[in-house]
This record gives sequence, structure tokens and C-alpha cells, in this order.
Amino acid sequence: MPEKTDPPLLLVLGGDPDGPGDVPAPDLRRIAGRALVRYADETSLAGLLPAADALLVWNFTSDAPARAWSGPGRRPGWVHTASAGVDRLLSCPEIAASDTVVTNARGIFDQPIAEYTAGLVLALAKDFHGSWELQRQHRWRHRETMRVSGSRAIVVGSGPIGRAIGRTLLALGVGVELVGRRERTGDPEFGTVHAADSLHGLLPGADWVVCAAPLTPQTTGMFDARAFSRMRPGARFVNVGRGAHVVQEDLVRALLSRHLGGAALDVFADEPLPADSPLWDVPGLLVSPHMSGDTTGWRADLARQFCDNFDRWAAGEPLLNVVDKRLGYVSDRSTP
Amino acid sequence: MPEKTDPPLLLVLGGDPDGPGDVPAPDLRRIAGRALVRYADETSLAGLLPAADALLVWNFTSDAPARAWSGPGRRPGWVHTASAGVDRLLSCPEIAASDTVVTNARGIFDQPIAEYTAGLVLALAKDFHGSWELQRQHRWRHRETMRVSGSRAIVVGSGPIGRAIGRTLLALGVGVELVGRRERTGDPEFGTVHAADSLHGLLPGADWVVCAAPLTPQTTGMFDARAFSRMRPGARFVNVGRGAHVVQEDLVRALLSRHLGGAALDVFADEPLPADSPLWDVPGLLVSPHMSGDTTGWRADLARQFCDNFDRWAAGEPLLNVVDKRLGYVSDRSTP
Repeated sequence: MPEKTDPPLLLVLGGDPDGPGDVPAPDLRRIAGRALVRYADETSLAGLLPAADALLVWNFTSDAPARAWSGPGRRPGWVHTASAGVDRLLSCPEIAASDTVVTNARGIFDQPIAEYTAGLVLALAKDFHGSWELQRQHRWRHRETMRVSGSRAIVVGSGPIGRAIGRTLLALGVGVELVGRRERTGDPEFGTVHAADSLHGLLPGADWVVCAAPLTPQTTGMFDARAFSRMRPGARFVNVGRGAHVVQEDLVRALLSRHLGGAALDVFADEPLPADSPLWDVPGLLVSPHMSGDTTGWRADLARQFCDNFDRWAAGEPLLNVVDKRLGYVSDRSTP
Repeated sequence: MPEKTDPPLLLVLGGDPDGPGDVPAPDLRRIAGRALVRYADETSLAGLLPAADALLVWNFTSDAPARAWSGPGRRPGWVHTASAGVDRLLSCPEIAASDTVVTNARGIFDQPIAEYTAGLVLALAKDFHGSWELQRQHRWRHRETMRVSGSRAIVVGSGPIGRAIGRTLLALGVGVELVGRRERTGDPEFGTVHAADSLHGLLPGADWVVCAAPLTPQTTGMFDARAFSRMRPGARFVNVGRGAHVVQEDLVRALLSRHLGGAALDVFADEPLPADSPLWDVPGLLVSPHMSGDTTGWRADLARQFCDNFDRWAAGEPLLNVVDKRLGYVSDRSTP
């Protein structure tokens, strides 16, 4: 391993304060003087990468790291991404196979995404979108809506985001079954956490199915025609995970046939969703622009979390939120 | 008091199964044979009232009881209204002053209205209506939204509906101040329940102000220009009480000036809201057609609750949900 420059070179993808303003700049004042900070954009990343000791993927919607990684020269020993999902990074086999430590933004998005999801569940139950469409038409049309308390939800994803969603739904009186990779019994909040392979057996019992899983080869396309057909007629589906969890055409068919009672997608296979996507106009489908976790102050929280990890890295201490690259997410056992 | 016929005559306003179908018929099979049931509509009520031993106000949106009451003849000893609010009935001074016992539907709407209100709070915080407008336009526009956890709400109304709303907001991590008629300390869930006359002092501290009060002379028009000006810039207002709690023009001005960040009204001074009402088009105002409490099965629940009270009435036992006509709602001290 080449010797580190002193101070180390921190390469930041996106957020260049002197750049074109792709995303707002990260507040890195806390580490001023302790790192030589250089900003890269999509085109300059590959050339700058060999000099970097650490890489902060601040613009986490970029595929540039995965594209640049296989180029020539040395690679940084640490990559931190300002996102919960690491699917973009690990889509590059060379990153996945490297010795580079990958850390993520685990924790920042839990409560915001839980609130957003609970809001979607209530909005779907209470037909808010129907009311707002009627409001546009100046039409007063009383309807009976669904009581959420006493309904039943499956939350796929047993990490901190899925757990926060589950906890919030429990607080609304919803019965919650959590689904993770492996079965775990005796969970203090959820009892049994079910294994992914028992999902199809559980689906017929749920009024709500929420996807908040990490995107891995095992979870890609897991919500397909077979899964939707197992869901109860009138049940609703919410995706705050990744677009590729869902076979979008299958979801559209399940909505158009009125087998499902509604769905809300905050994430899509293609983001931003193109203006000519048919998804915008599917009846019963609520579209939002990948914002479920992004509450006021989120970028400051992300920068603070990175600086905390930088302090540990600079001191040679174990990093927080180390991704298990084999699993594709931070496993509870990899967190101190 | 004239002798009761045997079986007693129960007059039901609205829901005549052989009538024009103003509202769905109540399921009164449980009391079959124990009451002579006759249905009245708006025009026949006055003529039938003198023969009635009890009146079920099934179509609770009607003003016919208040109009008919002052006519000639005897009056029933018991009136049950299938609504939580009794403002329509008590708007008639002769009913308020009479010996007739008035009972209401206390309890049926608590959890549904709490869910609906929590849904509105989340929808406003997460700008769901903005997302749905952008969806109509096929536009992908990411925004940062508000974190609900850690925000602060005032819930005006300390009866079971207000308490259920407060409890649900607490479960979402919202700090809740409950406001009732009189101050009460040591409430197990809310600590101090504040007196109505301290509301203006509390308003600047809240992100959310929710009205779930009974409509009485004291609460009519309580949300006026002065109250809205006390609210924090950007704060939001939700009314699930009665339209007359709000001076609608003042709310519109507070929204148009952008002093308030948004509002949701489920109730209006005029219901149904006329198609030419300017309220439909006020930016930042969400209109819904008085449906916050009406979840699937609500009419069955209302009929069951009435039959429970009928059993007590027939047996000469104390009735449930007896309205304190001086206060204008069921006081905790009037419930066994």
C-alpha cells in the first residue's frame, strides 16, 4: 500500500462549492486542516481517484465511482457514501472484491422514511388523493374510508429503516410482520422476524406490503407478478427501497386489473422518472421523487455523520457503519 | 308525563328503508318487537314528534329536530344523535332547556378521526399534495420536507376525540399540548391540560394546531385573525371539529399572506361546501368532505351503539353518553 500523504487526500464526488452546483456542498469545516479536500465530478473522478486516500460519495446518485473504479492506479482504502443503499457502489465487482472499506449513512434516514411511509399508508387508507382530485373539481363527495388500526402490514427489510417503519405502524395500531434475510425469533419489538423465503406465505394476510430492503441480487425483482398475485385483493404496496426491487410492469398490471387497491412508489428503476414514463398516469399509483428520507437538515446530518467517521479513520479507530460487502448492507454484527 | 305506549314508539329521522334513501337504513334488528319503529324525514318529523317516546337522529346532518322541537304537542324523553357533535340539536333553545335526555355517539369516531388527523399532519409535512400535483404534470422535483418527530402540536378539544388525536401524534414523536375548557393538571398522558383562555399564549410554540373541540358558544369562531396571527410563521392548521370554529375569511387571509404554511379543513360552515365556494381553490388549503371519522362499518357501529343505549333505556337503566346540555358535550362526570 502506498504511503499516505500528510494530511491525507479526501476526494469528494459532487458538491464542489466552486463547481456547477450539482448538489449542495457538504459542510466539512470540522475536518479543515486535517485533510486535503479535493472535489471531483463525474468526468474528473477517474483521473483523481489514484491520488485519493478516502472517497466521500456525496452525490450518491452518481454511477461514476462504479465506472471509475476499474481504471488504472491505486484505490482509496475507504469509501463513504452519503446514502443508506450501497447498491450503486457494489454494482461494481471490483469495488465489491477490493480491500476498500465501504461505509454508509445508516441511521440518518430511519425516522424520516418511517414517517413518510406511515403518511403514505394513512393517505392511501383515507383516500387523500381522491379527496384532492375532487377538490380540484370542486366536488363534495363523502366516502367511507379504511380504518388503519387493526389492519396488517408486512415490512420487507429488517434493518434500521424497516424497523423504524414497523415501529411507527405498530404505534398506529397496525399488526406488523417484519421480513429479513434470515429468520430470527424473539425480537423484542416484532417477535419473529421472518425469512425472505417465507414472504409468499405471508403475503395473503396483509393489507399493506412495504418494501424497505437493501437492493441485493437476492432482492432484485422480488416484487413480481407472482408476489402481487399472492397479495390480498385490495391490498396496497409501498416501495421506499429501490426501484429494482419491483418488476414495474407487473405492478402496473396488478393495479390496472384492480387486484391491488393502490400503490405508492418513491423509487424507480430509472431516476429521475422520465416525463414520458407511463407510470405517472397509472390509476391508483402515487409517484414521488425519491425523497422519503430527505427532511430539512438531512445534508447537514449526512456531513456530520461523515465527519464523525473521518475522526475515527484519522485516529485509526474502527469505522461506524461498515458495509458487509458480501451481504450488501451494514449487518448488525459489523456495527460496534 | 303522558303514559308510554307499549311497546314504545321510536321515531327515526332519516334512513327509512322504504324511503328515498337519504342515508342508509340503521340496522335495528336487535330491538325488533321491543319498539314500534317509525321513520320520519325532514318534512314529516314535526307531525310525528308528539307521538314519539324516543327519537333517533340517524341523519345527523339535518336541522329538522331543532326546527320541529318548538312545535305543539309532547316531546320525546330521549333523543340520541348518531354523531359526536350535538351543536345542531342544542342550537334549539327549547331542546337545550327541556327535560329530554340527549345522548350522542361518543367513542365511535375517536380512533378514525385520530388516524385521519395524523394522516393530514404527515401529508402536510411531507408535501404529498405537492407531489401529486407534480405527478399530474409528469414532473420529477425533489424537495426536502419536514420531520414530524420533534415537532409540536396543540390539540384543542380534550374529549375522547382530542385525546385520541393527541395520543396518535405522541406516538409519532410529536410534542402535544391538549387544550380543554378548564385547566387540569396531572393528566396521565398529557400532563397539564390547558384552559381555553391560555390558548393564545400557547399558539406561538406550535408547528401544528388541531381543532377537535365541541362547538359551543364559547368555541364558535375561536380560530380568527387574532388566533392565526399568534401562530408561528409556516405553522399549519387542521380542523376536524366544526366549520363554525373557524372564521373562514381569516383563515383564507392567513394562507394567502403565507403566514400559515398550510391548512386542512374537513368541516365547513356550509356543508356540503358549495361548488362555487372560493375555499376549493385557496393555495395550501386541503378540503375534504366531512369524512374524517367515517371508516368502513361506521354506520353499523353507530346502530349498535344506539341499540346498546336502547337496551338501557328500555330497562330503565342510566343511559351512556348523556350530554351535559349546559356544556354542550358529554362531560366525563356524566359518564358511568
